[in-house]
Amino acid sequence: MRILYHLPLSPFARKVRLALAEKRIPFELRVERVWERRPEFLEMNAACTVPVLQEPNGLSIADSYAICEYLDEAYPDTGLFGRTLAERAETRRLVAWFDGKFATEVTRNLLFEKQMKRLLGRGNPDASAIRAGYQNLRPHLEYIGWLAETRAWLAGPTVSLADFAAAAHLSALDYVGDIDWSLNEAAKEWYARCKSRPCFRALLAERVSGVTPPAHYADLDF
Amino acid sequence: MRILYHLPLSPFARKVRLALAEKRIPFELRVERVWERRPEFLEMNAACTVPVLQEPNGLSIADSYAICEYLDEAYPDTGLFGRTLAERAETRRLVAWFDGKFATEVTRNLLFEKQMKRLLGRGNPDASAIRAGYQNLRPHLEYIGWLAETRAWLAGPTVSLADFAAAAHLSALDYVGDIDWSLNEAAKEWYARCKSRPCFRALLAERVSGVTPPAHYADLDF
Repeated sequence: MRILYHLPLSPFARKVRLALAEKRIPFELRVERVWERRPEFLEMNAACTVPVLQEPNGLSIADSYAICEYLDEAYPDTGLFGRTLAERAETRRLVAWFDGKFATEVTRNLLFEKQMKRLLGRGNPDASAIRAGYQNLRPHLEYIGWLAETRAWLAGPTVSLADFAAAAHLSALDYVGDIDWSLNEAAKEWYARCKSRPCFRALLAERVSGVTPPAHYADLDF
Repeated sequence: MRILYHLPLSPFARKVRLALAEKRIPFELRVERVWERRPEFLEMNAACTVPVLQEPNGLSIADSYAICEYLDEAYPDTGLFGRTLAERAETRRLVAWFDGKFATEVTRNLLFEKQMKRLLGRGNPDASAIRAGYQNLRPHLEYIGWLAETRAWLAGPTVSLADFAAAAHLSALDYVGDIDWSLNEAAKEWYARCKSRPCFRALLAERVSGVTPPAHYADLDF
């Protein structure tokens, strides 16, 4: 069986889960407590991060970038990057935007400070980081809204990994109640369209022990 | 003409320069002072980072990840990712390692603190960050040395983007005198092999105004 090692609130693991589900590739989830630094896991990924995908043939692939590119090459049906070179470049630019810029400016300041620090016993959340996270979220939602109003999906005419990368970060933040959707109507509408896709179902149904999501989290018409 | 917008010490731009040169794709370099936030540049890359590649047909591609994957698809001769799915996954895992983990733990703590802060007028270098950067460099050089002793090149039997990503970071740090090569003999030998490749020539010949590299920087038998 195909196994995805993950943590429920990891946006990088969520992106891969959405990609696998969109491609209808079956997989089993296994929670990996990366802070325990399990030797067998370190052998699969020396960086000791999730996600790691283990294929039925034994091949294990570490890092969400490597996994998504692998999935596109190994299972080319339902491509997630677009057809033309220009579309593929735009998809990847946006994946880098969300997994790099958005992750540093927003996700890290909110999710890491408020959830991971507690989990890892790394001290109290830093109030100035949390403030910065909320401030940075605003222009990012505006950018998403602008893209969603300009194009059918974030990177172009078809749904792509850019949508899943963005939705992965937003869904993890939404789970802990950190997204004020009233800030941008177009971003909210785009996210509602993402949530309505079948690939999103398992994510929305999952509950993390000790954290209850807001009522709108799994609501498709929020 | 193909134009690469860059900054001389950007490891991400250096990775793309090495990839282009290894593939023998001709290009012109143009320095982009990203801190000036030039409107025409922002239109090519809303994140306002280098590198950005502008193709002769007008297509512009932002982000070093998007550029390298584009080059592999648009110019498949001299592939830089490996042949098998497993080789390609390993190359990408290591590119993510150097552009993510190494960049955060080492490059940012040294190059950003010592060079970019001065350039951007963002205050004095943080001594504790610089200390952390030197400390983190040590295990990274050991990891590179271990990979280089176990395999012909970092990701496997052939030179790949993993080598260029690692060498890009190390060459930028080496330019400012931050690499103590005596720390790991195997890493040093691997880097000497990288430097000897023709694709490295232009990088090693380039000088950054106001910063003189150590004598060994461009020496192939250092």
